[in-house]
Amino acid sequence: MQVPGFLFSALSANIKKKPALDLGLIYSEQEAVMAGVFTKNAIKAAPLLDSMKKIAHARGQAIVVNSGNANACTGTQGMQNVQTTASLLANLLGIEDSLVYVASTGVIGEQLPMDKITTALPILVQNLSASDIQKVSTAMMTTDTFEKVQARTIGIQNSAATLIGLAKGAGMIEPNMATMLCFVMTDAAIEPYALRTALSAAVDQSFNRITIDGDTSTNDTVLIMANGLLNNTPIRLDSPEYTLFYETLADVTWQLARMIVKDGEGATKLIEIIVKGAKNDSDASRTARAIARSSLVKTAIYGHDANWGRIIAAIGYSGAQIRESCIDIYLNNIPIVKSGIGTGRDKDNQACVTLLQKEVNITVDLGIGRGEAKMLTCDLTEDYIRINALYRT
Amino acid sequence: MQVPGFLFSALSANIKKKPALDLGLIYSEQEAVMAGVFTKNAIKAAPLLDSMKKIAHARGQAIVVNSGNANACTGTQGMQNVQTTASLLANLLGIEDSLVYVASTGVIGEQLPMDKITTALPILVQNLSASDIQKVSTAMMTTDTFEKVQARTIGIQNSAATLIGLAKGAGMIEPNMATMLCFVMTDAAIEPYALRTALSAAVDQSFNRITIDGDTSTNDTVLIMANGLLNNTPIRLDSPEYTLFYETLADVTWQLARMIVKDGEGATKLIEIIVKGAKNDSDASRTARAIARSSLVKTAIYGHDANWGRIIAAIGYSGAQIRESCIDIYLNNIPIVKSGIGTGRDKDNQACVTLLQKEVNITVDLGIGRGEAKMLTCDLTEDYIRINALYRT
Repeated sequence: MQVPGFLFSALSANIKKKPALDLGLIYSEQEAVMAGVFTKNAIKAAPLLDSMKKIAHARGQAIVVNSGNANACTGTQGMQNVQTTASLLANLLGIEDSLVYVASTGVIGEQLPMDKITTALPILVQNLSASDIQKVSTAMMTTDTFEKVQARTIGIQNSAATLIGLAKGAGMIEPNMATMLCFVMTDAAIEPYALRTALSAAVDQSFNRITIDGDTSTNDTVLIMANGLLNNTPIRLDSPEYTLFYETLADVTWQLARMIVKDGEGATKLIEIIVKGAKNDSDASRTARAIARSSLVKTAIYGHDANWGRIIAAIGYSGAQIRESCIDIYLNNIPIVKSGIGTGRDKDNQACVTLLQKEVNITVDLGIGRGEAKMLTCDLTEDYIRINALYRT
Repeated sequence: MQVPGFLFSALSANIKKKPALDLGLIYSEQEAVMAGVFTKNAIKAAPLLDSMKKIAHARGQAIVVNSGNANACTGTQGMQNVQTTASLLANLLGIEDSLVYVASTGVIGEQLPMDKITTALPILVQNLSASDIQKVSTAMMTTDTFEKVQARTIGIQNSAATLIGLAKGAGMIEPNMATMLCFVMTDAAIEPYALRTALSAAVDQSFNRITIDGDTSTNDTVLIMANGLLNNTPIRLDSPEYTLFYETLADVTWQLARMIVKDGEGATKLIEIIVKGAKNDSDASRTARAIARSSLVKTAIYGHDANWGRIIAAIGYSGAQIRESCIDIYLNNIPIVKSGIGTGRDKDNQACVTLLQKEVNITVDLGIGRGEAKMLTCDLTEDYIRINALYRT
């Protein structure tokens, strides 16, 4: 798995308490066009404040990422540490500081161990290789239990462009971004405005459609680098290739979002919620989100209980306009509520049996309009509690 | 524990799956002035729709309450069952149908076992006694582990009025009411408008300040009956006694709200969140609610982990206006964050030790204004999951 012109490297710098890969580097041999999306949390970690400034120029060449420490709520010292990291790395790579992006994930409120990072950076650069992409995705993991990588090829002007995305995330996950990082690399050439538009739309339809625990992190970052090595005429918003590029990117981010939810802390099931028949899309989204966030719905699914009363209660408090007598609910395509009323014990039992599956879908038809939305979430289990009651200690 | 002029009765009508008190009756020997507050969930159970009509007249004489079945999402049949229950009971008591209020709590989407209820009602009336108030509070319980009763005396015009409140609730609890029922009885005479005003204000400062799991129920009901047996000049909004009456009522509902949170499903700790220094009260409320709803904060407290990063992340995504460098956070009065930055390992460790207590307070000073708010919640534990993964089955 390689992307032309991109090199990768990862190592253990002892930032994490237990020995594991915790520092990764993505390097584009030539300057790339970049776009980024960042958390909407009003508390933003230091590396995000730095990246948000740099991304305005839509240029970049390296991303350095650490796990084990979020560098959030670390004040001016935290910001200096970002700049020191970027500057040291820029020096080692022989590029401008402004082309180096820093990303962090882990515990909030502790200063980065800069001595360890400074020692590690030269080795990280020395070890750069075209084939170590998977190692970078491992170095990004915190409570993740598996690596999240998606690769695609896109036919552009008779050549094949490569597009690969890496993501991490398992908790503090909520629409509008979360403790999730995602980096996408492609060798296609694309104009900055088109790249930014495609990324925003793709994130809106993927990472902003998932929730694990309703907590939005201080560190969410999605960055895309397009180094143009394919030598195609750069894609513009009105190019014929734009749609294909966008759809491929959206597919990659959607699949990565699914992987994040599948890896939701303690999760045993992936739950897809589809709402249709709402007055409008925003009402549909409100409804889907209320169901996806409901601890009672999530524990019921975990307990293989087709307890639709909890689903309809969430619909009722979502704030969306509804008419109770128009609501239909399907659990794994079995109609369990018709016109606001349960369809009976038999259907309930059928639905309970299907809840033994690893993937569950809840479809709600509000029956009053054409608004649609979907959300992905996971069940809520004792393991979520155990993981989060003990995470820091 | 008695309230002059009120009689009580409770029995097991086999509505619950396991034998336990599940049907209760509160009866005022003379017609009482009444006020009520109901769930804001757009899906409202049949008994609430009936009570909301009746309460417009501010009159009532009986409340019949069952647990084990919510009579929600039960269509016209469900509504007929409410009317049949009220009518049968009115007949037995020799009063008008419109003076009988029905309340239900339990599983959503099943029809009430009307044969069992019709059989039980005459016995319920026969057994009415002045001293069985505690039994009614037991009959209201679902996943509650203890009865919730609060009694007070109020000096009014040289007489002593009695005010007693009963409540139930342990899950599906969220501000703006929840699967909680609360009935308050007093022998004070009070005008309908004053009673309604006092109740709304008291509920807003108590039941609307608690969250257990963020799920708002379809059945929340608070009813107050004032039978006037004290023969005082009825209290008006501008009477000198109004403030004392309101404050006593607000104290009773606040203590009942605390009892509900203490009994939160699986809870081991009561968490009080106080936010001050917000731009305004509504920003303070938004902040307090975001912290109270955060699964990550609640699991950290459960794990005795002073993980303030999760608190500050919730502040950041609350939507309130903030300046990171102005935020102070105290955990059980230990300053763990000053000006947006952690105060260090020692304070953290001190705070962790205090988390062994049963009651925890989180105080946040946003440092930019005078807005204040408080919220009550509980920790999130494996037992919450167990209770809710298995509730219906």
